[in-house]
Amino acid sequence: MRKILIIGAGKSSSYLIKYLLDKSETENLQITVGDLNVDNAKKLVGDHQNANVIHLDVFNSESRIDAVKNSDIVVSMLPARFHIEIAKECVTYKKHMVTASYVSKEMQELDDAVKANNLIFINEIGVDPGIDHMSAMQVIDKIRDKGGKMILFESFTGGLVAPESDNNLWNYKFTWNPRNVVVAGQGGAAKFLQEDQFKYIPYHRLFRRTEFLEVDGYGRFEAYANRDSLKYQKVYGLDHIKTLYRGTMRRVGFSRAWNVFVQLGMTDDSYTIDDSANMSYRDFVNSFLPYSPTDSVELKFRHALKIDQDDIVWDKFLELDIFNSKKMVELDKATPAQILQKILMDSWSLDADDKDMIVMYHKFGYELNGEKHQIDSTMVALGEDQTYTAMSKTVGLPVAMATMAVLNGKITTPGVQIPISKEVYSPILEELETYGIKFNEKEVPYLGYNPLNV
Amino acid sequence: MRKILIIGAGKSSSYLIKYLLDKSETENLQITVGDLNVDNAKKLVGDHQNANVIHLDVFNSESRIDAVKNSDIVVSMLPARFHIEIAKECVTYKKHMVTASYVSKEMQELDDAVKANNLIFINEIGVDPGIDHMSAMQVIDKIRDKGGKMILFESFTGGLVAPESDNNLWNYKFTWNPRNVVVAGQGGAAKFLQEDQFKYIPYHRLFRRTEFLEVDGYGRFEAYANRDSLKYQKVYGLDHIKTLYRGTMRRVGFSRAWNVFVQLGMTDDSYTIDDSANMSYRDFVNSFLPYSPTDSVELKFRHALKIDQDDIVWDKFLELDIFNSKKMVELDKATPAQILQKILMDSWSLDADDKDMIVMYHKFGYELNGEKHQIDSTMVALGEDQTYTAMSKTVGLPVAMATMAVLNGKITTPGVQIPISKEVYSPILEELETYGIKFNEKEVPYLGYNPLNV
Repeated sequence: MRKILIIGAGKSSSYLIKYLLDKSETENLQITVGDLNVDNAKKLVGDHQNANVIHLDVFNSESRIDAVKNSDIVVSMLPARFHIEIAKECVTYKKHMVTASYVSKEMQELDDAVKANNLIFINEIGVDPGIDHMSAMQVIDKIRDKGGKMILFESFTGGLVAPESDNNLWNYKFTWNPRNVVVAGQGGAAKFLQEDQFKYIPYHRLFRRTEFLEVDGYGRFEAYANRDSLKYQKVYGLDHIKTLYRGTMRRVGFSRAWNVFVQLGMTDDSYTIDDSANMSYRDFVNSFLPYSPTDSVELKFRHALKIDQDDIVWDKFLELDIFNSKKMVELDKATPAQILQKILMDSWSLDADDKDMIVMYHKFGYELNGEKHQIDSTMVALGEDQTYTAMSKTVGLPVAMATMAVLNGKITTPGVQIPISKEVYSPILEELETYGIKFNEKEVPYLGYNPLNV
Repeated sequence: MRKILIIGAGKSSSYLIKYLLDKSETENLQITVGDLNVDNAKKLVGDHQNANVIHLDVFNSESRIDAVKNSDIVVSMLPARFHIEIAKECVTYKKHMVTASYVSKEMQELDDAVKANNLIFINEIGVDPGIDHMSAMQVIDKIRDKGGKMILFESFTGGLVAPESDNNLWNYKFTWNPRNVVVAGQGGAAKFLQEDQFKYIPYHRLFRRTEFLEVDGYGRFEAYANRDSLKYQKVYGLDHIKTLYRGTMRRVGFSRAWNVFVQLGMTDDSYTIDDSANMSYRDFVNSFLPYSPTDSVELKFRHALKIDQDDIVWDKFLELDIFNSKKMVELDKATPAQILQKILMDSWSLDADDKDMIVMYHKFGYELNGEKHQIDSTMVALGEDQTYTAMSKTVGLPVAMATMAVLNGKITTPGVQIPISKEVYSPILEELETYGIKFNEKEVPYLGYNPLNV
């Protein structure tokens, strides 16, 4: 039996565990799921004969070492900051490792030791990062193989609600960590390349500089820029590319409305409001507007943001009930962002039968034989229910497939790595297609930002 | 002879040194001016028989100790972060100390030792902080003495260019540290009290939430909120006040135009632009605007900020020559704020015969015998030339007067303190009047924010 240790039985582990259990007979697998909370792990494992659940506290080195020692490969599905201690034990006890998280500085520093021990540490093999890397590199390599030169790469991902569950005015619900949505874009200007020019967007303009994207069968989306679009420029080999842009997808109209919260200062996470517990939602909104003895919070809000009487954006705020003077914040010494998150969770939490959706959109512009071309590539994944979500599917399946590929000797290059080589992405993308995670590629006229070459 | 050590012969020391030299015969003073750069100190001292100049390096403890030991009182005019080492020597060698800077945490921690040695450390006795404390507390104490209850306090200060030198469209020149002007308001939301309600303004809205102020003989000004209007609430004894607001004064129209830089992200000091040295001013502006192969930077700028063709704000940007494609930034790896500062210094540096101006405006609202009253108090100080500026006058004179008051035993309360007690402010404000630094107080109808008591 080959022994797989999965640490963390949270939201994104359901498909991962299911995939490996389904393969456990034919592939001869013994799967151990370790978590602080064994109940959730037991629910996902059921009474499968090739699996067992253990109580595992990653802060307890004995518990950690025991579990790692007794495995052939370790999959960490914990939040990124918890990987490093496990990674160090994997080096010590010579075990391979797989995570869906960004490679931290500490993880990268293990690279020499990982290579010296002939180990394979695959990271960033979820959906974003993960499927985005693989699907982008597959097309980029194809373009290069035929002699093309990349001139434009744009890549967008969104975690959204499935069309059948899309029933509020924002066309949005929290399908993942709500906090990340509330503070998205903060911490510095967004940076990207357009036609060889560096461009910068400050946070307070980010949600007004969106662009539209059409996905066949799913209609129109919009996207705002990620903080650092140049992060993978070198890794993807795009050093001399003219346009490089990465963004986050929302349904059209979301960003324009969200910008109102940004403008008022309601997404600020840098200070706390002393008496927040005793504020109503209305008081909270009013604290960002000038005092008036006579004018309503509603009119001050409309005036501050220049929202006309017949502007449809207004209904989005009414739907959130932010002017309610009876609903209380009830959070003590909370930041504006924490209070806003609470207000949004009243409206944007998934109902029991709601389904989620992951959307991805890549644009590849290239030159071949003096002509400009463009390939657009899109992918949509839909959730089945609130356990087998699109998020857990698109995160968990590539993690599971990479784990099997390492175990079966299909991935052999040692080191701390991300899935950008053919060796890794080809078999995984191919297998993902059998699970319905399939990119729709099409040739489109190259538009770029300078179609007339003026 | 009483020996005064003045450390630092920078911009704000001219009046301080002149005042003390003028008094040196009658008051029996020996004045030592210490600076790293002795040339500037020599220029301010001339060949006065009661003064001498020494080379003093505050980072050299021997040099520091020698100078402090050989004095009766020490005046530090260095930037605030350099005071603490001098302050510690003053405790060790039992010398009084005077500074115009905010009381740092480290300075406050010396309070017990200062009191134990029966020493007097007066801080915040320049203009802002300094004259603002004294002039405000004099009126607040007067209101309280007659049984009034403070309900509103607003206080505004501005360092501006004198009307006779006010010849650009922004009605502004750099009369003090340009960097502080460029990054003003950054680092968190502005917080204040309006009619018992806490109000917050995020940085990107700060310059659109100004209010107007009229100063007799000087016309109209505007003011934007300081970061923490509540800083002196306890110190001034204003615990139950309904409205508390502190702000910075500019000429009308400055903030609306400045807001354009804020909106574009040109005041950001948190990241650097790699190729900044080789950018033109036009390139710099363009990096905050979307790429276009055809549209001009000018039109993109107007569009992004919704500046109509006939909006007078436009001429302010033309005057700064920000669209010039020949003028180069020439600063390597500079932040947007550093680049903007350079561009502004082309236009906003003082000419040789330009004069500066300090303006202060206080509003005091109070209740007495069931009636609401308001006192408005204003002060304008004008510079004489570029050595004897309004800034150096309003900073240096109170420092000098406080120094004499300590030496002559008129201030006797020991400890680390700021000038908010009658003992300190009464004689100093009285003497400042003889130098033309005089507040114009007038009773006005109480307006507050709720004149109709709705």
